[in-house]
Amino acid sequence: MLLVTPGPTELHKRVLEAMSKQVVSHRGPELRELYTSLVEKFRKLLKTDGSVFVLACSATGGIECAVSNIINKGDKVLSPVFGVFSERFAEAAKFYGAEITYLNIKPQTAPNPEIIKRALDERAYDVALLVYNETSTGTTSRELHEIVRACKERNVLVAVDAVSAAGGLPLKIDTWGIDVCVIGSQKCYAGPPGLSIITVSEEAWNKIRSSRRPFYFDLIKYKKSYEENRETPFTPAVNLMYGMDEALNIVLEYGADNWIKRHIDFANNIYEVLEKANVRLFAEKDYRSPTTISISLPNNVTDSEILKELRVKYGIVAAGGMGSMKGSLIRVANMGNLSVEKTVKVYDAILDVMSFKVDGINRQAIGDLEERLRKMGY
Amino acid sequence: MLLVTPGPTELHKRVLEAMSKQVVSHRGPELRELYTSLVEKFRKLLKTDGSVFVLACSATGGIECAVSNIINKGDKVLSPVFGVFSERFAEAAKFYGAEITYLNIKPQTAPNPEIIKRALDERAYDVALLVYNETSTGTTSRELHEIVRACKERNVLVAVDAVSAAGGLPLKIDTWGIDVCVIGSQKCYAGPPGLSIITVSEEAWNKIRSSRRPFYFDLIKYKKSYEENRETPFTPAVNLMYGMDEALNIVLEYGADNWIKRHIDFANNIYEVLEKANVRLFAEKDYRSPTTISISLPNNVTDSEILKELRVKYGIVAAGGMGSMKGSLIRVANMGNLSVEKTVKVYDAILDVMSFKVDGINRQAIGDLEERLRKMGY
Repeated sequence: MLLVTPGPTELHKRVLEAMSKQVVSHRGPELRELYTSLVEKFRKLLKTDGSVFVLACSATGGIECAVSNIINKGDKVLSPVFGVFSERFAEAAKFYGAEITYLNIKPQTAPNPEIIKRALDERAYDVALLVYNETSTGTTSRELHEIVRACKERNVLVAVDAVSAAGGLPLKIDTWGIDVCVIGSQKCYAGPPGLSIITVSEEAWNKIRSSRRPFYFDLIKYKKSYEENRETPFTPAVNLMYGMDEALNIVLEYGADNWIKRHIDFANNIYEVLEKANVRLFAEKDYRSPTTISISLPNNVTDSEILKELRVKYGIVAAGGMGSMKGSLIRVANMGNLSVEKTVKVYDAILDVMSFKVDGINRQAIGDLEERLRKMGY
Repeated sequence: MLLVTPGPTELHKRVLEAMSKQVVSHRGPELRELYTSLVEKFRKLLKTDGSVFVLACSATGGIECAVSNIINKGDKVLSPVFGVFSERFAEAAKFYGAEITYLNIKPQTAPNPEIIKRALDERAYDVALLVYNETSTGTTSRELHEIVRACKERNVLVAVDAVSAAGGLPLKIDTWGIDVCVIGSQKCYAGPPGLSIITVSEEAWNKIRSSRRPFYFDLIKYKKSYEENRETPFTPAVNLMYGMDEALNIVLEYGADNWIKRHIDFANNIYEVLEKANVRLFAEKDYRSPTTISISLPNNVTDSEILKELRVKYGIVAAGGMGSMKGSLIRVANMGNLSVEKTVKVYDAILDVMSFKVDGINRQAIGDLEERLRKMGY
């Protein structure tokens, strides 16, 4: 099977092998070294000198951690909503007493600086919950740095869900001024599912110190354990950390910026070829995600029939629509260990399967995808 | 290195190999089959027909899940405290508005039915938070079933932390009437760290349905996902599930009851040999844990000097004291894939190291540990 769901992504052989190392004590020198290594690598990749923690939970747990630590009861929270995951961010915050203002973003797009500035100027907010890349629709806030700046200029604390963005889109935590950023292990860095990474700025710490916090996600406990012992407060998922560390080695060997550039180059070419093939892309051009390729289906075709054929005929596992888009989208990951061979195989199969179901598909358009990518040195 | 900390425990080669299988989509048939297999195996082992879920978090996350779902603001909660983990259970519940009555249990013992009945008769409670085996001190509530019955007779909902008990002590969720039970992956079942398993009774569901619940640990979401699709609501830790499933295969091949009996037989013999060797055991006889062997040190010896020698001289990694017992205990796991060879090696090393530091240690007592265990057929 060839896995191209937008997370988890296929794991490199080296990552799989790393996970099968014997477990060690979570209170011994081996774990301290492993944890420090992970933290330092994430600091480098995410471009931050601030706090970084690796949590034993999936990314939704990281989202819960973020909102439970930074939200106080009665906080005014701005939540731009453009898919399942931005909605989830707001839902999670509600439990901790956030007073949410939902900002519904036009379908097929993502928040842009203009829309957010307008909202920020209408009302004072304590916190903004921003999703960088909406995995459920394949739309991206390409100008996230401008949006963050607009928030920070108005003293709004910024939490970013960069789960399916980190590693596939530019991200500069400190320069941009992101206060809390949540990452998933199993997306563009191609680590195993089950870990979430969270960053915390000094300004966020000031708020967190005075907040009521649940037990498992209490960031003050993570900070204390790391500063005093280079440990996690609770038993970490040791074998997943082995795998993640090796996944980051692969990224760093390739070069952090090159890794991101590869995602963008592949996506640009995939989108152009799909357009030439008369495939209807879901996202408007300026908002297309480089990590999650989202294809619209006509009303008479469902995602499940396309997905089933891809699986049965080609052994390719992609994803369908979520939430209000259930049934009408095909979502394909452009994440992690990208290769020309795999990518050509996937889109060749998609065009083949779609050509039997959707009128006007030009299967031949796939012809130059390989050449385009090879020309760019891939 | 030979790992004998009371969790994580050393993983079987088969478990390590299982974890290095390629990841699959968390919304496909392979995951559904894996998850169903895990749930069915846990049902068998924990003797329940009720709900079982596998969470992507460590056991402390499972504890957070339990209290966040069953505690409503203002609930009267009985918390017998006899170590770090029983204290943690109460602390976690406080965030959700529990009004805790702490019942301090005599040091070196564990809650018994008499003490709990007396407390239950003094005041009405909504929930009791019980720890079966206190990993921080190596003391066990051997008559947990009587304690649970006493609670249920008084309409008190019972949540049990069986993290370091399940697989090493008898546990019958349905017969005993436990409403919510939390298990860890990395203890007596010898799975990889990073998963928590939780069971839920019908009575617990009645309460959960009307409670406010956080997002990541919302059990109603887990129930819905499982019933409708045999899936988890959020990305599961797929590779850890591979490992856990294989760990449970090993347990079931050996026989679920035999697995528990082995823990108890090994512990009984270890305790007798340690007594003959003049080692001071921390727990009073009736409360000694079969899964966590706890050794008291005299005032002039610290746990870290013993642990260091065990590690450097023998490559054995054990644990020290926690909380108020920090510095003064050695804790050794009797969990998981027990073998006569490993056990003899560990206690031979402990007696050797202790004999240089603690007066009166009779090193020769180790002599018959192997023979005793062999005679019992191990």
